[in-house]
Order: sequence, then structure tokens, then C-alpha cells
Amino acid sequence: MADLEFIKKLVLPAQTKIVFLVMDGVGGLPMEEGGPTELEAARTPNLDELARRSSCGFTIPISPGITPGSGPGHLGIFGYDPCRFVIGRGVLEALGIDFDLQPQDVAARGNFCSVDDQGRVTDRRAGRISTDKCVELTTLLRKKVKVPGVDIFVEPVKEHRFVLVLRGEGLGGEVTESDPQQLGIAPLRIEPLASTSNPKASQRTAALANEFVDQAREALKHERPANMVLLRGLDKRPEIPTMQEAFGLRAAAIAVYPMYRGLAKLVGMDALSSGTTLSDEFDMLERAWPDYDFFYLHYKYTDSRGEDGDFQAKVSVIEEFDRFVPRALALKPDVLVVTGDHSTPALLRAHSWHPVPTMMYSRYCRCDDAQQYSERACSRGALGNIRAVDLIPLALANALRLAKFGA
Amino acid sequence: MADLEFIKKLVLPAQTKIVFLVMDGVGGLPMEEGGPTELEAARTPNLDELARRSSCGFTIPISPGITPGSGPGHLGIFGYDPCRFVIGRGVLEALGIDFDLQPQDVAARGNFCSVDDQGRVTDRRAGRISTDKCVELTTLLRKKVKVPGVDIFVEPVKEHRFVLVLRGEGLGGEVTESDPQQLGIAPLRIEPLASTSNPKASQRTAALANEFVDQAREALKHERPANMVLLRGLDKRPEIPTMQEAFGLRAAAIAVYPMYRGLAKLVGMDALSSGTTLSDEFDMLERAWPDYDFFYLHYKYTDSRGEDGDFQAKVSVIEEFDRFVPRALALKPDVLVVTGDHSTPALLRAHSWHPVPTMMYSRYCRCDDAQQYSERACSRGALGNIRAVDLIPLALANALRLAKFGA
Repeated sequence: MADLEFIKKLVLPAQTKIVFLVMDGVGGLPMEEGGPTELEAARTPNLDELARRSSCGFTIPISPGITPGSGPGHLGIFGYDPCRFVIGRGVLEALGIDFDLQPQDVAARGNFCSVDDQGRVTDRRAGRISTDKCVELTTLLRKKVKVPGVDIFVEPVKEHRFVLVLRGEGLGGEVTESDPQQLGIAPLRIEPLASTSNPKASQRTAALANEFVDQAREALKHERPANMVLLRGLDKRPEIPTMQEAFGLRAAAIAVYPMYRGLAKLVGMDALSSGTTLSDEFDMLERAWPDYDFFYLHYKYTDSRGEDGDFQAKVSVIEEFDRFVPRALALKPDVLVVTGDHSTPALLRAHSWHPVPTMMYSRYCRCDDAQQYSERACSRGALGNIRAVDLIPLALANALRLAKFGA
Repeated sequence: MADLEFIKKLVLPAQTKIVFLVMDGVGGLPMEEGGPTELEAARTPNLDELARRSSCGFTIPISPGITPGSGPGHLGIFGYDPCRFVIGRGVLEALGIDFDLQPQDVAARGNFCSVDDQGRVTDRRAGRISTDKCVELTTLLRKKVKVPGVDIFVEPVKEHRFVLVLRGEGLGGEVTESDPQQLGIAPLRIEPLASTSNPKASQRTAALANEFVDQAREALKHERPANMVLLRGLDKRPEIPTMQEAFGLRAAAIAVYPMYRGLAKLVGMDALSSGTTLSDEFDMLERAWPDYDFFYLHYKYTDSRGEDGDFQAKVSVIEEFDRFVPRALALKPDVLVVTGDHSTPALLRAHSWHPVPTMMYSRYCRCDDAQQYSERACSRGALGNIRAVDLIPLALANALRLAKFGA
């Protein structure tokens, strides 16, 4: 793989435009041996027409056999090695609720939980309290808990989940978790990781997080069943060069769900207001067309229906997406990529390790025998099996945005 | 490639079972342009039926153009980067005679050779003395040579070849060889490598090895033609995490030849007693089925017949192997892989660099257009060209033994 520093030196100024249409979890599997995958079952005349004009193949999100979460899956297609830039659980949760995380912040994923009178965890999710209750309890914590020297933010998520953000100078992200991941023992004290690169900053975070936990226990002591909190995945935002810095792209994200807008903002994209429907998203693509070089348009429901295990519903949302493809083509992008951040076969009801059917159209792509956008057709494609992180360099090349390497 | 530490963090406990059927040197070439390869010429209905239900493609043992020996070829398919874990010639030779090599041992490949009255090498193989003579001379050396402070083992191999093992505390493996690799000059003194990470330990090994050589010269001085020894490839076993540690697999090896059992033991597999025939090997696979998660079953003769340059004989042993495939399938493995450690085309009469036809069957594999297990069919497969070292992570994923990376 060509790394960021290598690519950066080759980046040329240009007026060309690149569009990435990302169907989350688009790759699939047959429900029974010999049957079609979701893409193969879907009627997708526009995607198939595009496939005939494109280089088709697969992207491997991380490496063979590795199933990515949404964070690593997206970093890869944005051109950043997901093994080098790691996004903590707390950071991802904060992005998921549209929290405006600053570079110095430490974010944690919190659970309201139940403990017995000895302080031992009896339910790590406090019986999955209602979201209303979660809002009530986070409001209580905001009022009662004061940690000296930092601002704290306690934000409700859903059911028993909340986000804690510590904001202040000199905080480190390399600390352990308080969640013991099992019942019958007390929450753990948060400590600097043995491997921390900045012991003083991690020590400070650990002390402040423990202070938060102690005050939260006191504030919640009369609550039932949620009388305690657990913290996991404490971390800062990874330091990532922006897509402008790394690739010379003015980049915009069009995504309905906060987490994907948040991931895009991590790499310096502008997250445009994208409404709630595909139609809203393509409206925004057209409106913002003059203002950016790179557009990431995210479609969530291919993943959602895959996670539901609903093969037919996934087929339907693929067909829905297909109807919008001509609107992207009508803008005459120099490079148009259709891909996903990972596969989510309905058969598995989960993200999977399978390579993602991917096609790249440009004036300069090599066409192949693929007559459809599907797993079987892409296995005959000219793109081959490439790593997701190589998509951006390849798109830049097709957009004539990369200089020759060496003389 | 995902490295061992990365994979280890993702390993999940599971009850699923993985079988690797390894036909040594299975990949081939046509004897004349336009002709079939060995696999294409062989009638293999069972392998072909499996190919239709599998993801087919190629494994690249090391990297394009690199021909592996048996050691690196096997380490790769066991999931260990062969460029990171290097097996010395002496260690491989010791494994090949079923010598129970301990972690602190240093093993060397020895040759009986001929020297003139000035001590200059006149024949590096002493006219390829008989194996009987080799046994007689190693018995002599065992009796006459006493190196203080260590136990020494002098084991006959075949013709002029023997294995020397030094066993004791504080030995290092980073030393030079005594074999000058040319005639007319005296054997070289063994020295610590300039790059040694432990000069004291390597110095100790060098001194002891030189002492062995000096005493061997004395013991052999009246022998003809084998009146001296040469030592090559002195080394310790590489320190390799076991497959249990690295991948969470209770692993068993079923292999007739000692070297392959030895390679399997290097990575912590139990080497089961495997008889002498394929029938014996599949009997053992069935008997051991409840006790392990991972089975490596090795078939030697595809390589042997390739090295003989006997195309038809290689075709026949492939057909022989094919008849046993249903017995593996009948056990209902969650993942069944058919591969080789490298190619051995009869045309080349040797190991080669060619990618190895490989197929992976599981409930979750993506099928493709490959209708046969052969070089030509695998080039249409969904597996693509992957590195051999990625096979294990991919098999673990298909066995639902790997957690998602990142949230």
C-alpha cells in the first residue's frame, strides 16, 4: 500500500470531481447454497449499466478474514489505513450522537448498570432502562457531578447507553476501562495503560474519570435499577490529516446518520445537511456540486436490513438506491465509485469479512467482462481484489490528480 | 497482512472445526504449451464437486516469484509469516528425522566430506557414501567425541548427511558455517555472526562447534573417503507462538513424513500417529475428530512425483487423493480448505514460485464460476490471489472464530 506521505507528494491541483456512493454493508451471500446474493437478486438496471462502463472488482476492508466495524470500514474507503488510525469506542459513540468532539477531548461510552449493596455489578445494562429514563439520569448527573479542572458532558444515547466527554487541557487517551465485563465483581478503577506514551496525561484522565464514577455512584445511590455507571473505550480522537491535506480534496459528506457524518468530519470533510431520505441526499449532492471536489454519499439501509436478516428487504433497498444512480451520473463526475464499507449478508445478520463489490467509472478506467454490479460479476472484473485503502489513490489517478512517481 | 498480535485480539472461543487438506507441491504446469497441467489432466470428481461449492483461487506462498522450501511453505499455510519466522537448515533437518528438538538446542546439518593431507576439501559429500557407512561413522563420532559442558547428538540421515545437535544452557544460534561451499580450501572456522543479538551465546556455540569439528577430524583421520565433516545451517528453533496461543485452535497434524510432523510441532500442533497410507491418515482424522478444532492433513506424493518429473505419476496420486475427499466432507467440517504448500510442476522437477490452486468451502463462502479444482478454473475464482499467510485468518472468519475489528 502507498502510504499517506507517499501519496501526498504526488497530489496535483485539478478541477476534476470524484463521487463515492457508499451503500453500507452492500456485499452479501446466498441464503442457501447455489442461490443468489442480495445484489444478484436485486433488479438494478442503472447499476448494471454502470458496471458495463466501469472497472469492477472487490475491496478488502482490512485484510482477508477481518470483519470491520463502521469506523475502520469507513476510514479505509476514505483512504486512511484503519490499522494505523484507530477510533476508540467512546469517540465513535460521541460521533454517533453528533457531539462536536474537540481534539483535546476524551470520550467514553457509558452504561447505566445495577450494583448490589456490596457494589458488585448485578446487571451491566440496568435491565435496559428506557431512553426516557436515560435522559432523566444524565440530566441528574449533569447537575450533581462536578469534576474540578475540566468541563464534563454527559449525553444520553439510547436505553442504558450514554456518552461522557471530559474536556480540558492535558488529557491523555490511553487508559483502561471500568467495565469488568462480568457480573459479581465491582467496577474496576481506571488506570493509565502500561503502554501509554504520555503517563502524566493518562494519569490525569484516569483520576478525573474515577472522580466522575465516584460522584456518579453517590448521585445515583437511591435510583433503581440504574444505581451505578460503567465506562468503556475512553479515548481521544485520532490525529488524522484532513482529506485536503492528505489528498488535496475539498471533501463533503452527505449522510443521514450522525455517526457517518462524524466519521467524515474526523477526516476533515464538511458534513452537509442531508435530510432524511435518498432524495434529500441527492438533492444536496446537486446543490453542493460546484463547491467540492469529492463527495461521499452514504446509504444506511443496506446495512440495516442485512443486520435484520431480511434478505428481501435488503434487495428492496438496493433497488431503491439503484433508481437514484442516474442523478449522480447526470452531474458528469470525472470518477464515480460505487462501493460499501463492508459486507452485511442477511444470512449472517451482521457485518462480515467478505470483500465488497466495488466499481469505478471514469473516462480512463479499463472495462471488463462484468455485466452487472454483483458479487459473481465483480469476480470477473478488471479491478481485482484491492484493499479499500487503495480506492482513494486509484480514484485520484482516474481524476488525473496524481503526478508520476519518479522520473 | 494482519499480524499475529492483531489476529490474537480478535479470536473468539467456538466449537467449529477447520480442516486443511494439503497436497504437497500440488500446483503444476503443462508439459507442453497448450497442454493440461497435472490437476487439469487428473480425473477428480470429488475435488471438482467441492470446487463448485467453494471459493476458489490461489495462495501465494511468500510473494510473487519466490519459491519456498518446505519450511516457509508450511509456516505460511499455518498462518505464520515465513519471512518473520525463519527455520534454519539444521533445525529442518532435525525435524526431518523426528529428532525431539528442544528450545535451547542448536542443530546443524552435517556432511561427511573428504579432505587432502593439507586439510583442503576435495569432495564435499565424500563420494556420497552409503547410508550404512553414515550410520557407522555417526556411531564412531558419538563414541569418540566429547564436548565439555553440553550434550551432543550425532544422528545419521541419508548417504553423507547427518544432524548434529548441541544441547545445553546459554547456546546461541547466530553463527557462521564451516562448509566453504567450494573445493581446494580448508573448512572454515565457525564464528559468531557480526549481526548476532547475543554475542556471548553465539561465541559459546561457535567454540563448541569448532571443538566438535576438531575432535571429529581426529576421530575420522583413518577413514576413507569420509575423513572430515562440514557443518551448515546451525540454528535454534524459532520462537513461535503456538496455534492455540495465536489463533485459539487446538490443532492436530496428520502427516506420514517426520519433517511435516516436526513443522507442525514447531507451531504447537499435536502430531498424531498417522500410519503410512492415505487410508491411515483419514482413519486418524476420523478418530481424532472430537478432540481438535483444526486438522492439518498432509499428502507427500504430489510433491515427490513432481520432483521426479513424472507428470503421469503425479496425475495418478492426485486421483488417488481425490477418492478420499468424501471422507473429510462426511465429518461435516465447518471449513474445509484444499491447498498445497507450494507448486512442484513435473516440468520443472522442483518446487516452484507459482501460486497454489486453493479452495475454501464453508457455509459462508462466496461461490464463483470455478467448476473444477485446477489452475485454469481457480483463475476464475472468488478467492482471488491471496497470500498463504492470510488463509488461516480467512478460515477462522469462515468458522465464525473472529470478532469484529473496531466498533
